[in-house]
Amino acid sequence: MNKILIYDTTLRDGSQAEGVSFTVADKKKIALKLDEIGVHYIEGGWPGSNPKDKEFFKLMQSVKLNNAKLAAFSSTRRKGLKASEDPNYKELIDAKTPVVCIFGKSWDLHVIDVLKATLEENLEIIRDSVSFLKKKGKEVVYDAEHFFDGYKNNPEYALKTLQAADEAGADFLVLCDTNGGSLPEEVSGIIAEIKDHVKASLGIHTHNDCGLGVANSLSAVEAGCAQVQGTFNGFGERCGNADLSIIIAVLSSKLEYKTIPQNKLKSLKDTAYYISEIANLPIPDFHAFTGHSAFAHTAGVHIEAILKNSKAYEHIDPSTFGNHRRFITSELAGKMPLIQKAQELAVKIDKKSPEAKEILKALQKKELEGYQFEGADASFELFMKKHLKKYKPFFKLEGFRVHTEKKADGSAWAEATIHIEVKGEKRFSASDSVGPVDALDKALRKALIKSYPSLEHMHLTDFKVRVLDTKDGTSAKVRVLIESQDEHDAWTTVGVHENIIEASWEALVDSVEYKLLKDSKK
Amino acid sequence: MNKILIYDTTLRDGSQAEGVSFTVADKKKIALKLDEIGVHYIEGGWPGSNPKDKEFFKLMQSVKLNNAKLAAFSSTRRKGLKASEDPNYKELIDAKTPVVCIFGKSWDLHVIDVLKATLEENLEIIRDSVSFLKKKGKEVVYDAEHFFDGYKNNPEYALKTLQAADEAGADFLVLCDTNGGSLPEEVSGIIAEIKDHVKASLGIHTHNDCGLGVANSLSAVEAGCAQVQGTFNGFGERCGNADLSIIIAVLSSKLEYKTIPQNKLKSLKDTAYYISEIANLPIPDFHAFTGHSAFAHTAGVHIEAILKNSKAYEHIDPSTFGNHRRFITSELAGKMPLIQKAQELAVKIDKKSPEAKEILKALQKKELEGYQFEGADASFELFMKKHLKKYKPFFKLEGFRVHTEKKADGSAWAEATIHIEVKGEKRFSASDSVGPVDALDKALRKALIKSYPSLEHMHLTDFKVRVLDTKDGTSAKVRVLIESQDEHDAWTTVGVHENIIEASWEALVDSVEYKLLKDSKK
Repeated sequence: MNKILIYDTTLRDGSQAEGVSFTVADKKKIALKLDEIGVHYIEGGWPGSNPKDKEFFKLMQSVKLNNAKLAAFSSTRRKGLKASEDPNYKELIDAKTPVVCIFGKSWDLHVIDVLKATLEENLEIIRDSVSFLKKKGKEVVYDAEHFFDGYKNNPEYALKTLQAADEAGADFLVLCDTNGGSLPEEVSGIIAEIKDHVKASLGIHTHNDCGLGVANSLSAVEAGCAQVQGTFNGFGERCGNADLSIIIAVLSSKLEYKTIPQNKLKSLKDTAYYISEIANLPIPDFHAFTGHSAFAHTAGVHIEAILKNSKAYEHIDPSTFGNHRRFITSELAGKMPLIQKAQELAVKIDKKSPEAKEILKALQKKELEGYQFEGADASFELFMKKHLKKYKPFFKLEGFRVHTEKKADGSAWAEATIHIEVKGEKRFSASDSVGPVDALDKALRKALIKSYPSLEHMHLTDFKVRVLDTKDGTSAKVRVLIESQDEHDAWTTVGVHENIIEASWEALVDSVEYKLLKDSKK
Repeated sequence: MNKILIYDTTLRDGSQAEGVSFTVADKKKIALKLDEIGVHYIEGGWPGSNPKDKEFFKLMQSVKLNNAKLAAFSSTRRKGLKASEDPNYKELIDAKTPVVCIFGKSWDLHVIDVLKATLEENLEIIRDSVSFLKKKGKEVVYDAEHFFDGYKNNPEYALKTLQAADEAGADFLVLCDTNGGSLPEEVSGIIAEIKDHVKASLGIHTHNDCGLGVANSLSAVEAGCAQVQGTFNGFGERCGNADLSIIIAVLSSKLEYKTIPQNKLKSLKDTAYYISEIANLPIPDFHAFTGHSAFAHTAGVHIEAILKNSKAYEHIDPSTFGNHRRFITSELAGKMPLIQKAQELAVKIDKKSPEAKEILKALQKKELEGYQFEGADASFELFMKKHLKKYKPFFKLEGFRVHTEKKADGSAWAEATIHIEVKGEKRFSASDSVGPVDALDKALRKALIKSYPSLEHMHLTDFKVRVLDTKDGTSAKVRVLIESQDEHDAWTTVGVHENIIEASWEALVDSVEYKLLKDSKK
């Protein structure tokens, strides 16, 4: 079984997706998650291009990765400078990663029109850049930008650029379909033509502009590429990069390749959602393998047939990659994810017990309402404990009011009042703030702090909102995810409602309850 | 140039997508739009399976299509009945379409486990069904369900089922990858093997469960299929059907095939959004060819290069299919996108002019406050116009109030009041709703609709919130992005404030203003 190396560039090329803006902390979280699932390379950013990426690599020097090698990205050296003089290359070395990836020009059009160099100059730039980095002891991945377009225009020259990197000692020559305009047969045809003219291992980097990012990568692997570059969920500029979540799934289930470790395949869906949540870019429901609807059956004939033989309308067992079957009309769902989570929480629960059935029913109801517990571990734990009667409430809400106003002068403000009962005592508190959720948060804490002083040490670190049913526009249900933190942990809670204030309130309350529960265990 | 027949099943297989529910009127609108763009076949539904589809075909008997032939769908006849006795076939004939499409079993597993018939019985069922329909004078499209899975399991029998339909006179034999688990090379390999053993023209029907729906269809066309079945935007059950909008684009621009008429290609994007709008399923921004971000450039190096030569980072001219290039505006990208955008807005602005400097300064101030125009093209256009004094306001806000309340019984609601001035006239309106943003949205529309009736046709499709400075928890600034859509376009607006209601309001107002501005240009 051939091994295909998975090179993830979610943190670099993926961050070019419209609307994505990772903080340094986001990047670290994603890197750790990618390492956990066992990708082989993590491209963290371009240290020479912006201070945030530079900071990320500095931070990562004190972080141990167990599976992946970290890579820093750059272009070939600047025209007219030696690699050793190029400030970009100083940053690249300072990033202290075992691997560097540099991209260079393969397409004569680019050399002449964009780089404004002669064809020979470009070859010298490639040679010098790769040699310099090899002398510094780096594993060098050479990204041949626009390789396929270049080859179609001038095959001889495109190959020469590859050979320049090859002779200078590059460890991987990665053929890039930068503009995403190539077709699978072109990709495999061109690879067959050049393969025997270089020594280094080949890699592939495709984009999705023709909806063929995955197909082109597979075609390249079948033609002999040993490394696949892409991003989780296909995040990337324009139509996105080749989608690693799909490529890993297809290579390991439909073709006989080894990618990430076998025992990590089940985490594919979770990893995809984790990254999607941090990027705040949703995974479309119809997304292959990991999407919410990927194994959802609507047609009556299909459902009937599946009950007779699951292979009838399923190309693969949904649990292979951590997803599950859904029958849209009948709301039957697998019990396994539930049992698994319960066991993680050290709650003994028998698959066939009436308890399990009842919780499953309640969970299905919640999911139907739009709750999604994948990214809201704390809310899920509370949900389980409440249903297993292992939860004693810390307080009881009797009601709240929030008022928001904008005046003619443009100023806006909010105030909240809240009635709760804590340890048998009724309390009323009020707070104002610039915004309604903060006013509510403050009022709640004010009412609780006397009884639970540890709340002083928790705070909200992130707050995300997503519309669930786009049909209804602003009256649609919204899902609020709140991330909180104290000195020890971070946790996420979820609330769902048509009213954004109420959804925020639910997530807020879960967050406080989780904190109090956590502290009460100490 | 070979002609490939486009067989659209958005109204039948596409309606199986989770969340889609077409009315009869919706179906007629979509059928007319598909006819207008020049698809060759429109599969309207399954008259024997539900009364809505039956009604649709009745309605269509008085509608003239200029380009497309209408097709009605069904299965092969029921086991144990003659085709002439099957009530399904009565409905099929009563639909009075020139074309009928029936699906039959190719996979022995299905024949035995699902149909509960013998292999020979199934062949007889296929022969009888096709003969009956041919005798009734229909053009018969035979969908060989699960053909590839069947062939992989029992090639001899799968071929026999095709030959049964072929000998009975079917006009097209359509090979279906019903479960979406096949790979492009398998598809073309199997087609090569069976091609010479049947007389009728071949067609292809694929699904997207491995992210390969488009690739498999292209592979089949290259192997000799003359008809492609699919849906617009890839709508369909599970991961969807092969996406006709992409297939049409690739076949006509990357390969030398004729699909829809040349002069209709420019309507591809409009048709895609029109159907998306009626289905109430959004087209993801990164969708190939038609997506909002499909030709959006982020990276500074890419933008610079494109301005030198557009081929540098674009595989095709975006206008070919009615889309357009966008330079995403962000601090990192410098002045170029600004200049470009200004030019698109037909504003002459010199890179070095004091005007350009002033706008850039204002823009940087906005970005520092947390606005991110990356992705909020509509807000950016309004911002530019307002700064260049090219914008005349459609209305003026004098103030709003929003009240949200949760009672002890757990119920939550909201109400909004709003004062605005429209065309010199002061208006006050109030609205209640389950949530505060919707209450505000409704109150605003109520106040405006009399003066601007086109607002009826826009609605909000997505709503995202992101906390900007995570340190401040719930009192941090939030950025709200609202995506809106009408029958023609999608656009995004942004609002930033510490108060989530105020941030939503800003984005809401921009969205409405953009719509009104757009309409006023017509």
